[in-house]
Amino acid sequence: MQSNADTIFKEFKEHSISEFFRKNSQMLGYSGKVRSLTTIIHEYVSNSLDACEEAGILPEISVLIREEGDEKYFIKVADNGPGIPAKHVGKAFATILAGTKFHRYLQQRGQQGIGAAGCTMYAQITTGRPIHVRSCTGKESFECDITIDIKTNKPLVTNMAKAECNSSGLEVSGLFGGIKYEESDHGVYEYLKRTVLSNPHLYIRFTPPSGKEVSFPRSIDEMPKRPKEIKPHPLGIGTNDLMEFAHKSESRKLSSFLEESFSRVTANKVNELKQLVREIDLEKDPHDLKWEEAEKLVKAFKEVKWIGPELDALSTIGEKQIEIAMKNILNPKFVSVVERKPKVFKGGIPFVVEAGIAYGGDAGKQLSAKGEDEQHVVEGNIIRSANKVPLLFDASNCAITEAAKSIQWKRYGIANFEEEPVSVFINISSVYIPYSGVGKQAVAQEDEIVEEIKLALMDCGRILQRYISGVRNKELQESRYKMIMRYVNQLSSDLSEITGKDAKEINRQLNLLIEKRYKDIFDAEKGEDAQEKKAVEAEPDSEE
Amino acid sequence: MQSNADTIFKEFKEHSISEFFRKNSQMLGYSGKVRSLTTIIHEYVSNSLDACEEAGILPEISVLIREEGDEKYFIKVADNGPGIPAKHVGKAFATILAGTKFHRYLQQRGQQGIGAAGCTMYAQITTGRPIHVRSCTGKESFECDITIDIKTNKPLVTNMAKAECNSSGLEVSGLFGGIKYEESDHGVYEYLKRTVLSNPHLYIRFTPPSGKEVSFPRSIDEMPKRPKEIKPHPLGIGTNDLMEFAHKSESRKLSSFLEESFSRVTANKVNELKQLVREIDLEKDPHDLKWEEAEKLVKAFKEVKWIGPELDALSTIGEKQIEIAMKNILNPKFVSVVERKPKVFKGGIPFVVEAGIAYGGDAGKQLSAKGEDEQHVVEGNIIRSANKVPLLFDASNCAITEAAKSIQWKRYGIANFEEEPVSVFINISSVYIPYSGVGKQAVAQEDEIVEEIKLALMDCGRILQRYISGVRNKELQESRYKMIMRYVNQLSSDLSEITGKDAKEINRQLNLLIEKRYKDIFDAEKGEDAQEKKAVEAEPDSEE
Repeated sequence: MQSNADTIFKEFKEHSISEFFRKNSQMLGYSGKVRSLTTIIHEYVSNSLDACEEAGILPEISVLIREEGDEKYFIKVADNGPGIPAKHVGKAFATILAGTKFHRYLQQRGQQGIGAAGCTMYAQITTGRPIHVRSCTGKESFECDITIDIKTNKPLVTNMAKAECNSSGLEVSGLFGGIKYEESDHGVYEYLKRTVLSNPHLYIRFTPPSGKEVSFPRSIDEMPKRPKEIKPHPLGIGTNDLMEFAHKSESRKLSSFLEESFSRVTANKVNELKQLVREIDLEKDPHDLKWEEAEKLVKAFKEVKWIGPELDALSTIGEKQIEIAMKNILNPKFVSVVERKPKVFKGGIPFVVEAGIAYGGDAGKQLSAKGEDEQHVVEGNIIRSANKVPLLFDASNCAITEAAKSIQWKRYGIANFEEEPVSVFINISSVYIPYSGVGKQAVAQEDEIVEEIKLALMDCGRILQRYISGVRNKELQESRYKMIMRYVNQLSSDLSEITGKDAKEINRQLNLLIEKRYKDIFDAEKGEDAQEKKAVEAEPDSEE
Repeated sequence: MQSNADTIFKEFKEHSISEFFRKNSQMLGYSGKVRSLTTIIHEYVSNSLDACEEAGILPEISVLIREEGDEKYFIKVADNGPGIPAKHVGKAFATILAGTKFHRYLQQRGQQGIGAAGCTMYAQITTGRPIHVRSCTGKESFECDITIDIKTNKPLVTNMAKAECNSSGLEVSGLFGGIKYEESDHGVYEYLKRTVLSNPHLYIRFTPPSGKEVSFPRSIDEMPKRPKEIKPHPLGIGTNDLMEFAHKSESRKLSSFLEESFSRVTANKVNELKQLVREIDLEKDPHDLKWEEAEKLVKAFKEVKWIGPELDALSTIGEKQIEIAMKNILNPKFVSVVERKPKVFKGGIPFVVEAGIAYGGDAGKQLSAKGEDEQHVVEGNIIRSANKVPLLFDASNCAITEAAKSIQWKRYGIANFEEEPVSVFINISSVYIPYSGVGKQAVAQEDEIVEEIKLALMDCGRILQRYISGVRNKELQESRYKMIMRYVNQLSSDLSEITGKDAKEINRQLNLLIEKRYKDIFDAEKGEDAQEKKAVEAEPDSEE
């Protein structure tokens, strides 16, 4: 006899992560033709940048897109990076969740091990073709074709052959379908432009389908400060993390495990902890740590006073560079930029927010025509970026959008944030960006992150407000001055007739009087203005 | 000598899908304490509903939430469904991407095989505890503890023991941390209430942390129409799908493979196809199908005239039930509901949209206080649902929200959609809902789906508009009538004095005159109104 359950569970199967993302490719960013193309370029370029930076090479990337008819394009991305060893190339391009980044506590653009394998899968399901990879590591040089065995999430490497190279580098190419090249706000051109602006040491050559090559030369000839790989901070550790670290630790004692595995844990701090969790034997083998003990330790972590997380793990764009970038994109009349001090979220994951506000010029305008299938994601005046990677999609779902929209812009001289010529720029840098989706286009709305973005925008807003009120005062004064001066000449000659005195002398005296009076008004207004600004600065808390 | 690449790739590792979602649990819906709790209940209740429906059992589900201090809660969900065989229980609860639903072309609430295993993982990483399962299938009865080995995504089943049962059913319980019970718009109570409203055959008993049990009794004693498992329609098939189906087919010939694997493909249609792709031998073994041939076949599919997809695969809520639901939640003055005809997206995936609009009463109001960490997702007047499952989060990222906001509500008598007392309800039913994220809280903005939701809302809008203009006309007329009547009595006595005629008779005549005149105006307005409405109905295209 079969039960109901037996009948239903006849259909029980296991699926690979590749099968899952093949069915749900929209979750990887493959929805809409323009967006899908941008996703491919974004994955390859981010990987090239990460590899060059890790190898200490000034990145030079070339991107080629050639139309092959019927929503099909040949795409080639080549870099001067370190290349990939033959041994790893299959999995790097054709195993979802394999890579060098997922498990490291290091600021990188990629952090999942999904992107490049996702591209291989997308080529495969839209044109049936493998991707072609050419890699020169300086030790070995080869080329090959790669596909994913979707059922097993394993690579199939074929046509492996020697290649000739002069220097190290990686070149990946393929035929992709279901995509479309368009010069929209969310298109490849905009993506590359914004990538260069956030990465001034990057040189990109881009050949779009028209064949007209465009170069984005580098504006700085040195590598950015290299982010350091760090150990996690005790305040960012949950019970489950602690258990996992302890159980795979090679330390002999719990005490030495704590010192070796976490940032800021010294012998002194271990002693402090010892006082807080007397019932736990810190000399025991970390493999014997129990959940209840780990829970107590995590609680004790929160009672100890720690030095903050190591911050040289973070690599920002820099205030100067953001200013250049915003001027370059928006041609504004005024820019204010702020880099905040590093903060932590979820207790101990360090992050930094950089913010800029541009006013006037092209700020606040749609930068270019909308993509045909992307009308729902355009947020013209909020330019988002995470770990120096531009975020072009899913704006409405992002901590940055939420923070920017929650600011009381009137306080900063902006009566209507959506309508006025104002644009904001935000970059978040962290060893772990909590993206809200696998496609990594929006940052999850973690309270600490939203709060910090708001504070950054308020910092910029205060500087902007001074500029705007200055401009408005000046305009007001100028119009008053002009109004008065219209009457002075007439008045001088009238007074001259009545009094018999010299018209020129009267005119001169009147001018002096007006100038003096004018100065008094100006000074008085400046005083009021300063008081007002002080009030704004004193009560930012009320916005929180 | 080691190359740069060798050094970097020393860190190369493969990761399991469990490790990925452990690190990125926010992508599964575990972000924010209130939301995380709702996610757990949502996963278990959806699974219970799917299982009961598949087994043809009227579902009876009990949900218990008990506070255990410090953001920890004991949760138990029990149903009267078919149970799970012991052989499968480990993987069902502790292997991400294992299940009975992922590969079937059938309308179900679950479709990924992620939810229940995600809950097990969340229990494990927040409290270190296994979940406890008690299953009775009618053939076997047992209980056991289950955890996931996160490194390998494999189940660990312990403490397996016999259980006593009177009837079939499944009970899952566990201790979960990092969550919070709150009676907010996105809380468990609201979720269960809306679930019952969309599933009138469901009986839920709910015991919240206060201990005060609430019952949501069923309003219909029969099972909803059972959705049928269908074959895919040729218009919904891409080249890659066709290749995959062909290569695992058991048919001997391509022609019979086509007839057997797809809906609406008859011998006649195969002949039509034969004319379109003469170069392909349809008698060949489907395993030998080449990509280029598959591509040609897919193109040929698009040239043949097909009967639409089988629509009995879809199970809707029903107009009557939606009306009851909206009246129940919103206590409105007026409701209009429309069930559209089934449509297809991506060429051949069938779906149906049901829409309702409520006006007046509590419509348009925030239903209850906002959750402390969910302020950013509240969209008070758009109630979303997919395959009869309420969607409470990620509203801004959803096709339903986009469609509702793009309607020109003024045409339908709503001057300000955000401010007026109006709420809309949308349910989408499909064999495959294209969710935009793994957490399944928002529907991806596929053009065909957004369009269809808009048309559904416009259908409802037209009915609403008639109601609103009726109400407004009536109000207008009443106020005019009152105004005039104020003068009639005075006028009657004045005229009586002047003319010497009987005041009562004058009054009567005046009243007659006003009533007649009043009727004329009313009729004229009705005429104009009808013309206006005709205009609205004639040009819906201009909105598209």
